[in-house]
Amino acid sequence: MAKTSATPPRGTRDLLPRDLVVRNRVFDLLRATFERYGFEPLETPAVESTSALEGKYGAEGERLLFRVLKRGSDLEAAGRAVVALPEAERTGGALARQLADLALRYDLTVPFARVVAAHQAEIVLPFRRYQMQPVWRADRPQHGRYREFYQCDVDCVGSQSVVVEAEMLLMVTEIFSALGFTEFAIHINHRAVLEAVMEGTGVPAERRVAAMTAIDKHDKIGATGVRAELVEAGLEAATVERLMEVVGIAGTPAEVIAALRPIVGASTGGEAGLRELGQLFDDLNAMRVPAERYVFDMAMVRGLSYYTGIIFETIPSNLRIGTLASGGRYDRLIGMFLGRELPCTGISFGIDRMFDAMAELNLLEGDATTATQVLVALFGQETLADAYAVAAELRRNGIRTEVYPDANPLRAQLTFASKKGIPLVCIVGPDEAQRGEVTVRDLRSGQQQAVALGEVAGHVAVALG
Amino acid sequence: MAKTSATPPRGTRDLLPRDLVVRNRVFDLLRATFERYGFEPLETPAVESTSALEGKYGAEGERLLFRVLKRGSDLEAAGRAVVALPEAERTGGALARQLADLALRYDLTVPFARVVAAHQAEIVLPFRRYQMQPVWRADRPQHGRYREFYQCDVDCVGSQSVVVEAEMLLMVTEIFSALGFTEFAIHINHRAVLEAVMEGTGVPAERRVAAMTAIDKHDKIGATGVRAELVEAGLEAATVERLMEVVGIAGTPAEVIAALRPIVGASTGGEAGLRELGQLFDDLNAMRVPAERYVFDMAMVRGLSYYTGIIFETIPSNLRIGTLASGGRYDRLIGMFLGRELPCTGISFGIDRMFDAMAELNLLEGDATTATQVLVALFGQETLADAYAVAAELRRNGIRTEVYPDANPLRAQLTFASKKGIPLVCIVGPDEAQRGEVTVRDLRSGQQQAVALGEVAGHVAVALG
Repeated sequence: MAKTSATPPRGTRDLLPRDLVVRNRVFDLLRATFERYGFEPLETPAVESTSALEGKYGAEGERLLFRVLKRGSDLEAAGRAVVALPEAERTGGALARQLADLALRYDLTVPFARVVAAHQAEIVLPFRRYQMQPVWRADRPQHGRYREFYQCDVDCVGSQSVVVEAEMLLMVTEIFSALGFTEFAIHINHRAVLEAVMEGTGVPAERRVAAMTAIDKHDKIGATGVRAELVEAGLEAATVERLMEVVGIAGTPAEVIAALRPIVGASTGGEAGLRELGQLFDDLNAMRVPAERYVFDMAMVRGLSYYTGIIFETIPSNLRIGTLASGGRYDRLIGMFLGRELPCTGISFGIDRMFDAMAELNLLEGDATTATQVLVALFGQETLADAYAVAAELRRNGIRTEVYPDANPLRAQLTFASKKGIPLVCIVGPDEAQRGEVTVRDLRSGQQQAVALGEVAGHVAVALG
Repeated sequence: MAKTSATPPRGTRDLLPRDLVVRNRVFDLLRATFERYGFEPLETPAVESTSALEGKYGAEGERLLFRVLKRGSDLEAAGRAVVALPEAERTGGALARQLADLALRYDLTVPFARVVAAHQAEIVLPFRRYQMQPVWRADRPQHGRYREFYQCDVDCVGSQSVVVEAEMLLMVTEIFSALGFTEFAIHINHRAVLEAVMEGTGVPAERRVAAMTAIDKHDKIGATGVRAELVEAGLEAATVERLMEVVGIAGTPAEVIAALRPIVGASTGGEAGLRELGQLFDDLNAMRVPAERYVFDMAMVRGLSYYTGIIFETIPSNLRIGTLASGGRYDRLIGMFLGRELPCTGISFGIDRMFDAMAELNLLEGDATTATQVLVALFGQETLADAYAVAAELRRNGIRTEVYPDANPLRAQLTFASKKGIPLVCIVGPDEAQRGEVTVRDLRSGQQQAVALGEVAGHVAVALG
């Protein structure tokens, strides 16, 4: 028989049962928590019109779009247009625009903005939604970085209240605690305060992006590295020193706010930002978020430029892995399809990095390699009804039960269970069937016990712990 | 602000919270049931190499592939190749093969076959898996038919035992009963028996596909229509009569088998097929599948040609909607990547059609329009802590609770809850806070009641029913 290559495309992966047992546990926890906080599910198509995506991600992002070829007569027309193009204009970008009318979703934010505009008659504001779906980027694949990967976004559109941010951070705290993280803190800052600090310390307007980029590397290159980059960015020595002093301010949120007030005082935006932060910390306290779970961190900037207010990153302090969940307020993005602005706050969970962190912290060790909890062995036709009576009893009690489909030797069936990592095997041979019993064998301990048929579900539930 | 069109691409749809409340309930039920039967989750990438998909779906299927444009220098090289093509060869297919190296998944069967080959060292046979993911087809969009839609496939590879088929049908019965279907039956047939009937009634080999296609329309065009089509297919009158007699055989499975035995007796394959069917009906009986849930239906053929053994369709008898879950044994398909054959049985749930059927049978009426069960109203800073104490208590008890983020007038907050379909509102104003109470208002009845803070979760749980 002719064989085709079975490898999935470069930068993509198959998720096998052993991967999905863990992933689904975490996804289920996220989904259940989001819904307990009143966030509602949303799903959008994998493909978007290229016109909906173009102009949203910058030239670099656009280059990474996976574009979907036109079809039928549209494709033939596009082929004629390509042939007609002068040779110098047959570049990748020009070809792509001719040949494709759809592209795979690049993130979940643009589709969300599109949905808010498309369904404004149905959507009641403020609208809290979560979306957990794959996105695609034609990036160079690297270890642990994929071209198809899940994003998990939680956003609230339509409210300017800081309660929105505070509650998201409460939820983040609950989620990471539930996943087993014990050492983590949410780093909080405010874009307007950052801007005001730039102004107050005398950073010229045209150097501010460079300065913020340098400060953002604080956790990677340390104070010395940041100082060097600020100098390299062309800041005067005195400005660098004033800026480094601000970045170095430590203390409780109230202390940091007090220390910043004289510096940002001259800026209306900065003063308002500090007031919002003060409100946020009050709200976090009222919501009983433990004080050790958040810190006002002047060195945290967030790369993306579209944030307009409070920003945050969730960082485990016992790992050098960066942020696991981050976001902030971005009041000017959601209107790109709507034609008018709506206030919006969002947080994005870095699913793949969360799994990496959990693996490194041994938080995945309790997870099984299979969803299946019990194998019912099959002896043959005469005990088939008995085997299925046992399986039905277990399943009725919610126990995930596989029946071996062939009457192979018991040894082979036990090997099967053991290879898959199924912990328990229920055996109903002719002898057991006659006595109305089931032998329950625990493959982890090697021990087995005869149990009356009516008690098998209870026994198994106890053995599964 | 410049506006981009917010409509999703043709043939695709956004799934809003009110859609997903229902979909997730059904998906969760399917997933939980599959896992209780020992089927394990599998996920594959949305994109597959074109080489993995080509030659698998026939010319018609291949035309419907959504192909993904090559990127970077590969695209420029492809552009040059297109320009170099003689004009007569610049057809859609030739262009598509030049310009695309990936395509969106067309079904879940080919990816499954690929996975079995790619991960054969890890996969323990027999391997039962389920997969619920979207597929894409560039079909003409129609009402209720989409270009991106979910497929839901359950397969077992690596066993020839009829127990596999029997247990799948047991599971199908459980699923449709749990979804609220009361009138449905699984129609069962066998490809080898069908072949043997063709042989036994004297249908010439070259007319058999046409004859089966005609018989397959039995539920749509009736016996008269089938007879006409058989004549049109060039069968002799006597053959048509013999065939119609077989198609019309009714009775218990045992009676149908007995009636067929003389007709298929001459064919080894047919005799073996009847034996397998006999075994299947015995197993269904041993598994306590109610007899009214299945029928041996000689007029059920299944369109796809790759089936080799038992085939089945699940049909609600109180609706004219066709099959909701169908499949069978296909022992020669899975090896296309592996290079050797493996026995396989699968069933595919027609998710969208299931939702249509449930809507028609009013099985979705109990579903809410939002996942959220309670809105906690917000009065302002002084009662924020109290509002969040209530929300925390409700959430701790698993109740999906949204807190209104702004201290808007209570009337506006009640309107918000009512528009969204949130049934209960918890109100902790300054008076309530002082008395340590919560006012729980039921928007369905308009009634409200003051409840002590410690009893709010219990009270709400009862009100939600």
